[in-house]
Amino acid sequence: MADTLEQYAKAREALIAEDRRLRRDSSREPSDIELKADKVVRDIRAAEAVSVWGAEHPDIPHPFPGMEFLTGKSVIVKTEIFKILLKMPKGGLLHAHLDATVDVKCLLRLAYEHPALHIRVSDAVNATSVNTVLPEFKAFPKQAYSEVQELTQSPMQWVQLSKARENFPADLGGAQGFDKWLTASMMINPSEAYGTHNTVAKIWQKFTNTFSVASCLTLYAPIFRDYVKEFFLTSIADGISYVEPRINFRHRFMDDADGNECVPHREWLVMFDEVLKEVKEDLQKQGREDEFIGAKIIYTTLRLITPEELTWYTEDCIALKKEFPHLIAGFDLVGNENELKPLIDYLEPLLQFRERQKEEGVEIPFLFHAGETFGDGTETDMNMYDAILLGTKRIGHGFSLVRHPRLMEICRERGIALEVCPISNEILRLTSSMPMHPLPILFNNGVPVALCCDDPSIFGNMGLTFDYYQVLVSSEVTGLVQLAEVARDSIKYSMLEPEEKQRALESWERQWAKFVKEVAA
Amino acid sequence: MADTLEQYAKAREALIAEDRRLRRDSSREPSDIELKADKVVRDIRAAEAVSVWGAEHPDIPHPFPGMEFLTGKSVIVKTEIFKILLKMPKGGLLHAHLDATVDVKCLLRLAYEHPALHIRVSDAVNATSVNTVLPEFKAFPKQAYSEVQELTQSPMQWVQLSKARENFPADLGGAQGFDKWLTASMMINPSEAYGTHNTVAKIWQKFTNTFSVASCLTLYAPIFRDYVKEFFLTSIADGISYVEPRINFRHRFMDDADGNECVPHREWLVMFDEVLKEVKEDLQKQGREDEFIGAKIIYTTLRLITPEELTWYTEDCIALKKEFPHLIAGFDLVGNENELKPLIDYLEPLLQFRERQKEEGVEIPFLFHAGETFGDGTETDMNMYDAILLGTKRIGHGFSLVRHPRLMEICRERGIALEVCPISNEILRLTSSMPMHPLPILFNNGVPVALCCDDPSIFGNMGLTFDYYQVLVSSEVTGLVQLAEVARDSIKYSMLEPEEKQRALESWERQWAKFVKEVAA
Repeated sequence: MADTLEQYAKAREALIAEDRRLRRDSSREPSDIELKADKVVRDIRAAEAVSVWGAEHPDIPHPFPGMEFLTGKSVIVKTEIFKILLKMPKGGLLHAHLDATVDVKCLLRLAYEHPALHIRVSDAVNATSVNTVLPEFKAFPKQAYSEVQELTQSPMQWVQLSKARENFPADLGGAQGFDKWLTASMMINPSEAYGTHNTVAKIWQKFTNTFSVASCLTLYAPIFRDYVKEFFLTSIADGISYVEPRINFRHRFMDDADGNECVPHREWLVMFDEVLKEVKEDLQKQGREDEFIGAKIIYTTLRLITPEELTWYTEDCIALKKEFPHLIAGFDLVGNENELKPLIDYLEPLLQFRERQKEEGVEIPFLFHAGETFGDGTETDMNMYDAILLGTKRIGHGFSLVRHPRLMEICRERGIALEVCPISNEILRLTSSMPMHPLPILFNNGVPVALCCDDPSIFGNMGLTFDYYQVLVSSEVTGLVQLAEVARDSIKYSMLEPEEKQRALESWERQWAKFVKEVAA
Repeated sequence: MADTLEQYAKAREALIAEDRRLRRDSSREPSDIELKADKVVRDIRAAEAVSVWGAEHPDIPHPFPGMEFLTGKSVIVKTEIFKILLKMPKGGLLHAHLDATVDVKCLLRLAYEHPALHIRVSDAVNATSVNTVLPEFKAFPKQAYSEVQELTQSPMQWVQLSKARENFPADLGGAQGFDKWLTASMMINPSEAYGTHNTVAKIWQKFTNTFSVASCLTLYAPIFRDYVKEFFLTSIADGISYVEPRINFRHRFMDDADGNECVPHREWLVMFDEVLKEVKEDLQKQGREDEFIGAKIIYTTLRLITPEELTWYTEDCIALKKEFPHLIAGFDLVGNENELKPLIDYLEPLLQFRERQKEEGVEIPFLFHAGETFGDGTETDMNMYDAILLGTKRIGHGFSLVRHPRLMEICRERGIALEVCPISNEILRLTSSMPMHPLPILFNNGVPVALCCDDPSIFGNMGLTFDYYQVLVSSEVTGLVQLAEVARDSIKYSMLEPEEKQRALESWERQWAKFVKEVAA
């Protein structure tokens, strides 16, 4: 035990260093310019903690750094820290569900371009029902366009989207009210997350509804192509240089232009690939190739199918991997972990899938969702054991990993990165605000982490800037230098091939050097 | 990697065991009867998760197990699990602030017995101000009793408590309204915790206010004695067999019967000791000595004093320890860690205190509050390093310990127990509900834990049953067998002398055996 102040100060420094020894940023010595930029950001953060988060804001009863995202977003976007982070090169986006990646306003704009698209509702839309009635969309061939003129009087009857919009009742806001209604049906608003649906179970009901509405549009082939392009372009604009979206292949076919459910999975990949090439070529022409390395797809299906049905999907995945080896990055099962089947239910077909890969000479890593829960010892929490035993290369969420000392150690030792989605976790009520989030535990235990936005069209956290923001303002340990390590890890733990990865890291370092210089200036 | 289902099952079992290897309950093999009782409780818990927590309750919008305590309390008390836990022997209560341990209704009843007690307010009490105006109490000698007849028209004028009560305006509820107002001023209600004061900083303002109101009464010597007795008796009724309350010695004197600030600290201890003897003798006469081993005091002062002032208190503490060696259990600094001074500010007088103890031949262990925060790398979080470097024997709260891998390891290796206060943490907004609480991380890392109620008169979580309840219903890992280990640790990590401890453990085991038999029957 230390006895003099000097001895004490030394012992203290040593203890702190020992405690932080496992951190992934502990072994890298930042350059002077990095330290300077880091300092600039820390100073602004400290100032804004008072000037912005300590100030009164109309309609925001309890502002604080890292507060509930949906309530605080309007404040966040005005901060200097946010503006700086917008420009930061963020590496890869490793956890995002493709059908929830593009701003709902943009998706609607795309939908309005297609006269074939129709809409229907199961109940009449009026002032009391407008917040709960869910729209359904479908395309029809020209000769089958509906003659119905307006939506509200005709539940369950298809109406052309454009007509339904034009003739939407004035007392519900007319065309603007129509847009607002559709937008609300595909997003979560603050009064839902923090009021009417303020539990994990309740908010998941609303969350699931938003997917069922949006998927009618995203699974319409004429929209899909533009949708993917928009996803790439907005990601690039946000400083993301690589994306690895999860695509839900549960539906075996997309609808073609005339609404025929006939576009098979391989066509989805063809479209994806074409858009990818187009975007990369455009960037190259502009000399901006460092800004975007590319994209791969994580094949997913829903964890409500039977174990027997899973085999169809794993075989489908193998076939796609063989045809598009550069596109298929891995395999996962998605959906509400707390209510749908645990991984162990699929043990047989998953082990068999591994065998079949060997037979077919392909490698499709598992990238499982697991532990997206605050349950302790529940089926969802136990999914973490199975994900790791099955050899997952990363864990989607892994919110409950911090409870499991041995599993954290395994993740550190084997380099199993966690795809952490701070804002998603908060809106889906696993944590009430960012300071309560277990992320610092992962950092201090040296578990590789990639920050992700999960379903930005639903949460409004487009790109990665918002998630980076919430993380940065909720910790005195984390600064720009620490976020850089997260960005690096998002490339290191991506499913890029070794040489692609090397190139991606080099591109990122060039962008980072430029960024740091600007911030420090 | 496992290939067959059988191999997989074995590997899974081994991994779970390895992950739980550090748990303090992992080395003890429960008896058949313990396992049976544990199963009974798990079955009831599973049934009540549906029948109670899955049902609709008027005025409770989102019921779930482990929900916000102030909202869920009325549901909790009706459950079978609660009734069972009421009877469980819970060992020691190691973290409670004495002046917040007795039901406010009882404290008021005690106050009303003393005609010398007067009340005043700084603003007129009326329908709009009644929720915010704070009462102040003081005793006067008979010849100085106030002639003022009622409170509301006389801000800043002293009124006899009984008169103020009798003449409290009818539109504010008369005498009952008076009781209600005083009760509310000393407690936190759900709309404050989850509405108007729903941040750590805001709820601490209300929390601090409750202390300032109650302390005028608890520091009145004629009440103190009865107050301490009530604390012992209600603790015993709740299955607590030992208490180690923190007493705040910031004020150098208590008021005597006539309101003279003249009762010194040693008199407080004399009264405490007398009540303790009385209660123990009564129990012995009833053959109930197993139910209560005793009580010791943790000497505390407020962390807003200057480092220079601290020396007066440490010397005072040494003097008391020498006169009452059996009563002084340790030393601590209390108050809002997030806003008051960090431990490091007191480094010099604290190191000096250690030296002085050696000189005086006494041993007064540090039992520091530290890390009662969700801040990451903030001063409060950093207090944990200093508490440990200063050789603390336990940590009060240590809410942020889970972030610090090396510090958790040190706590496990050196046997530094955490005094975890689940309901306090939730009401003071460090966690929004029990499932979000980091307690399972401490359990799985083998950190010794004593569950505590902190300030039950303010939170309404009298005794330990409510905190045990919240912990039990929020985890599938924790059952009766696991809670027993927590109860055992609350004795093992108490500041009882070795032979007292041995006796306390033996008494507890006898009570536990009886309890388990009843539950399993």
